[in-house]
Amino acid sequence: MSQKVKVAVLGASGYSGIELLRLLLRHPHAELVAVTSRTLAGKTLSAEFPRFRKVGIADRLTFSNPDAAALKEAGAEIAFLALPHGVSVEYAKPLLELGIKVIDLSADFRLRSAEVYKEFYAHEHPAPELLSEAVYALPEIRADEIQKARLIACPGCYPTSILLPLIPLLKAGLLSADPLAVSSMSGASGAGRNANVSLLFCEVQNSLRSYSVPQHRHLSEIGQELAIAAGREVKLSFVPHLVPVYAGICTTTFASLAPGVTLEQVEAALQQAYADQPFVRLLGRNQSPDTKHVMGTNFIDIGWALDQRAGRLILMSAEDNIGKGASSQAIQNFNLVCGFDPAAGLQSV
Amino acid sequence: MSQKVKVAVLGASGYSGIELLRLLLRHPHAELVAVTSRTLAGKTLSAEFPRFRKVGIADRLTFSNPDAAALKEAGAEIAFLALPHGVSVEYAKPLLELGIKVIDLSADFRLRSAEVYKEFYAHEHPAPELLSEAVYALPEIRADEIQKARLIACPGCYPTSILLPLIPLLKAGLLSADPLAVSSMSGASGAGRNANVSLLFCEVQNSLRSYSVPQHRHLSEIGQELAIAAGREVKLSFVPHLVPVYAGICTTTFASLAPGVTLEQVEAALQQAYADQPFVRLLGRNQSPDTKHVMGTNFIDIGWALDQRAGRLILMSAEDNIGKGASSQAIQNFNLVCGFDPAAGLQSV
Amino acid sequence: MSQKVKVAVLGASGYSGIELLRLLLRHPHAELVAVTSRTLAGKTLSAEFPRFRKVGIADRLTFSNPDAAALKEAGAEIAFLALPHGVSVEYAKPLLELGIKVIDLSADFRLRSAEVYKEFYAHEHPAPELLSEAVYALPEIRADEIQKARLIACPGCYPTSILLPLIPLLKAGLLSADPLAVSSMSGASGAGRNANVSLLFCEVQNSLRSYSVPQHRHLSEIGQELAIAAGREVKLSFVPHLVPVYAGICTTTFASLAPGVTLEQVEAALQQAYADQPFVRLLGRNQSPDTKHVMGTNFIDIGWALDQRAGRLILMSAEDNIGKGASSQAIQNFNLVCGFDPAAGLQSV
Amino acid sequence: MSQKVKVAVLGASGYSGIELLRLLLRHPHAELVAVTSRTLAGKTLSAEFPRFRKVGIADRLTFSNPDAAALKEAGAEIAFLALPHGVSVEYAKPLLELGIKVIDLSADFRLRSAEVYKEFYAHEHPAPELLSEAVYALPEIRADEIQKARLIACPGCYPTSILLPLIPLLKAGLLSADPLAVSSMSGASGAGRNANVSLLFCEVQNSLRSYSVPQHRHLSEIGQELAIAAGREVKLSFVPHLVPVYAGICTTTFASLAPGVTLEQVEAALQQAYADQPFVRLLGRNQSPDTKHVMGTNFIDIGWALDQRAGRLILMSAEDNIGKGASSQAIQNFNLVCGFDPAAGLQSV
Repeated sequence: MSQKVKVAVLGASGYSGIELLRLLLRHPHAELVAVTSRTLAGKTLSAEFPRFRKVGIADRLTFSNPDAAALKEAGAEIAFLALPHGVSVEYAKPLLELGIKVIDLSADFRLRSAEVYKEFYAHEHPAPELLSEAVYALPEIRADEIQKARLIACPGCYPTSILLPLIPLLKAGLLSADPLAVSSMSGASGAGRNANVSLLFCEVQNSLRSYSVPQHRHLSEIGQELAIAAGREVKLSFVPHLVPVYAGICTTTFASLAPGVTLEQVEAALQQAYADQPFVRLLGRNQSPDTKHVMGTNFIDIGWALDQRAGRLILMSAEDNIGKGASSQAIQNFNLVCGFDPAAGLQSV
Repeated sequence: MSQKVKVAVLGASGYSGIELLRLLLRHPHAELVAVTSRTLAGKTLSAEFPRFRKVGIADRLTFSNPDAAALKEAGAEIAFLALPHGVSVEYAKPLLELGIKVIDLSADFRLRSAEVYKEFYAHEHPAPELLSEAVYALPEIRADEIQKARLIACPGCYPTSILLPLIPLLKAGLLSADPLAVSSMSGASGAGRNANVSLLFCEVQNSLRSYSVPQHRHLSEIGQELAIAAGREVKLSFVPHLVPVYAGICTTTFASLAPGVTLEQVEAALQQAYADQPFVRLLGRNQSPDTKHVMGTNFIDIGWALDQRAGRLILMSAEDNIGKGASSQAIQNFNLVCGFDPAAGLQSV
Repeated sequence: MSQKVKVAVLGASGYSGIELLRLLLRHPHAELVAVTSRTLAGKTLSAEFPRFRKVGIADRLTFSNPDAAALKEAGAEIAFLALPHGVSVEYAKPLLELGIKVIDLSADFRLRSAEVYKEFYAHEHPAPELLSEAVYALPEIRADEIQKARLIACPGCYPTSILLPLIPLLKAGLLSADPLAVSSMSGASGAGRNANVSLLFCEVQNSLRSYSVPQHRHLSEIGQELAIAAGREVKLSFVPHLVPVYAGICTTTFASLAPGVTLEQVEAALQQAYADQPFVRLLGRNQSPDTKHVMGTNFIDIGWALDQRAGRLILMSAEDNIGKGASSQAIQNFNLVCGFDPAAGLQSV
Repeated sequence: MSQKVKVAVLGASGYSGIELLRLLLRHPHAELVAVTSRTLAGKTLSAEFPRFRKVGIADRLTFSNPDAAALKEAGAEIAFLALPHGVSVEYAKPLLELGIKVIDLSADFRLRSAEVYKEFYAHEHPAPELLSEAVYALPEIRADEIQKARLIACPGCYPTSILLPLIPLLKAGLLSADPLAVSSMSGASGAGRNANVSLLFCEVQNSLRSYSVPQHRHLSEIGQELAIAAGREVKLSFVPHLVPVYAGICTTTFASLAPGVTLEQVEAALQQAYADQPFVRLLGRNQSPDTKHVMGTNFIDIGWALDQRAGRLILMSAEDNIGKGASSQAIQNFNLVCGFDPAAGLQSV
């Protein structure tokens, strides 16, 4: 029988947190030894989340207050931080000092530059010395670094859906310098599990709308990673939209091919990057991905088309924003860090 | 008491048709004298559409087979065609010959060029001589022509949402020649009321997906009207998406300003075009329109933003695809043709 | 031109309140002179509810603090109270004393007995002397009293859907004394527009659940009105369910026929009661009403069936919970109080 | 490594079939050797169901025409029939004759009486000799018989949700002879994956309605099983409702306690029956189950309440109609037939 890695989850009361617990409760190589939440301290997992009744240890495991020393004592080897932006950083430092590796789902360690952080998040970064150590953890792009890391910054939901189709093309120099235009739609779970009138069923159900125009915070990490891939600054406009589904992100990107580049070259670059990746599915030319086929999974589906009239390449992707866009990608990183089969615990479709 | 205009509706079994009937049953200056449908002939309106029980004449008016002479005999002065593309044209000709004005909701008379029609609809146009007479009827843009017309081509749902924000800017020469990138989301009513597995509740509810990439048929009329406004060809990429709402279109357009143009000039052009228009609502800078505020109405809401990092103007609009995008816009045109108050019968919010 | 009655709306920030404003903004015989809300004081109607931009006086009318004297000064003749339960009563008294008639949408004046009120609402009724004056205002049942009343208690949403099918049968003595079993489903707008995690889109969208079992507060008014109709106590179990629609109530009632009673007698009693009522639609035997046909209207649709195996009568009804179940029924009562056409302002379908 | 049982699935193109494939593709002890469908013959699983791309053998396994001999040749030991009612019976007989055990998800073998079958299904049963052999396979009630059976009739979705709460109470004699009243709500997947206008997204999304009133076909099997548990005929009225969710059944049952019976006795009977069952979760007194907590799982959640005013016991249950109500229950039966851990392959939450 396989030995299990002892893990803790900090701040598991939001939609990504619940999804993370769901995946960990069934992971063959993970043992959940602690779950923390200030507001839920003392309750069992299944008392708060009735979905988990009679599932694994959910009827017995109790939320505790977050405390690095206590987590160490509980034997935690790896801590998942499903905390709000700005809060993760408070816990990451003491956990790392105690030798506990950190897989963070917040935005706190995604940026390499403390200045860009300040520009987009409106305050000084509290631990800039950790930014150079953290790995921006797209497992299809940076597996080697992730395997060796002790501080994993899981990418944001929108960025994952935007970056994976673009990075191989930018690396291969297939796109022109024209600004990219990116339009994304996300389900309401991306907006969090907060008591907020604008997120009520009655407000969301018949609503289609953009938000955070023109400068969503995710632009900072998207820009950073595109620049690394391209070896130059990459300009883009990004408009996210909220649509009435529980989960799912559908992204459409308009790009311009560099002079002389053909669609066949685009396809070759995508195939080379992802044909052997278990969680990237290349659908083919003029094929539209559909979020319903990736919901609850770690897959990202990618399609593409050439609009010859306007001279534009159209890239399309679909993922589960709390799956590949957050929690299952965190598990994928966990598997890399621990040396497990990349698909361990991610078998559900 | 006002005299009423006698109207007929041909082919009212789809979602736009039902919406048209809803509006006509309550219109203060319209008298519904005939409703045709081959498949429903003999049934009363309310037998087919239980929503209309005890509403106006819906319990008494019976669907008949479509026949121009019979409609003339019934006294019809104006005929609304809510027929499939390619079918409207068959009826428009005999109706016009009998002196009945035609307000067509299909795509049959939207294009000025029979060649472009053939390119996008894959067959010869059956009555090209009518194309020069028909008016592409955006009431905010072309009221004078509509008032005098006897053949009204109501714009498509996507085109309405895309054209209204862009036309004043192109007329004023505020946009550069860069290709536009347009991303739209539409509710499922836009896909029609047809027995089709891909439109079942269970297929649509958790689904976000693009379709008809890269060349949706509506590109033809959008291109035509943008070129007229700009006085030059205007290139654009257009990606429509299907999302799980009954109705509503939310459109986001990425454009480039011409050199030296400011956002203030954009705002002035929009204000000048629409401040006095009863059904266009300008929301302001960085304001995202929301389809829930226009559902069931004839309003289109427009917002805009300048993305200075990428040097892009972002235009955003929201409309009801079967309202301003189809049936209530048809009523707005009807009011123009008949010389009624532009808002007659369109008071509902 | 018709003279208009000056009306005020107190507390119009919830879903019933918005629906009430929507109906009043377009009512041909109502002039909205004041809208109150402590939290929204100073804002215009359309600033808070973007749906109302460019509609009637919504861009100019400003929310004020609720104050009976100020409303009198503004000329209000009738006040609609769309306030929470327990708050309406505070305002009803001073308004009545100033000669302003009150149409209350809360539960504060629905019960005749202060004791029953205390049992179900857990505190003493603050103005028991008004309970005998108030009229429980089902317009199909009690039009005469409503016309003369100065204090109108609009029935609850569930009670309306349950009482209208049952009252004619109980009056005619067609049902046995067996306890009734009532199962209702309601859209989320019935739960209010409050910042509450359990009402978030992500919590409601995939959820079907009962609540307030076994004793929902509406049982008190249902029991009261059934007893009046039957001339005896009528026992019933009532289980409400929350389902993922914006609005709509679908009610199924299981009853036992009195010995010897036939389904034809049931049908005759329903026809006699409602055939001439403009807003009750009798669908017929074995016909299931559907909330989608009554949404946004003042209709209630009623069907019925006899289950001969179990010896049970099944009554089925559908209404819009914020329409016939709240705001449009309030308008129907307003029309009665003012002597207008019963359908004035209720023409939308 | 565990040996795997070779299984075939016949007719896997509906929602239960897709769910069954999903569960079998990941089942640790099942090897999918054949999938049949006349209409899909020649396609791979993942070509038809894009969700299954890159999942197990879904990219390689091809639909074949249904043929018992070919399935035998392919090595199938157990065949799941996810065929329409009336079609399963055609295949069950030859499969059984070839020694292949049959787990049928249709209604073909649920009734013990060919006469009752004819009454409810309107034609003679084609293989009445098999009815006595088939086991009505509620695994919590009839595990011993299921283990030995070669023809398994999986219960219907509504019956599972109705029978599990009632059977222990009827066995213990706790309910009176009054007719039961049962109201159920089901998601649209229960209505099948057929091209049918009434099941379109736009028809279902805003709709709440009952159907098949007063005599749904499932009444036959419910009545049969209740009578077996009670040792007497049990009368019930049953009204199913269609509501806008993908999946989930929420059932509310009104019953009368036998004289002198207390709620504690009811609770004791439920605890005794189900405390040790892995897939039945007893929520407690006045606790309403919620379908969102059982979606995608094999759980059924049960709550109860005593309505003392009306003297009624209220039983409430929630299940996934294509999970515990169909496909995952079929897997639970498969595990019993094969002697596997009851929860094998049913770990997902």
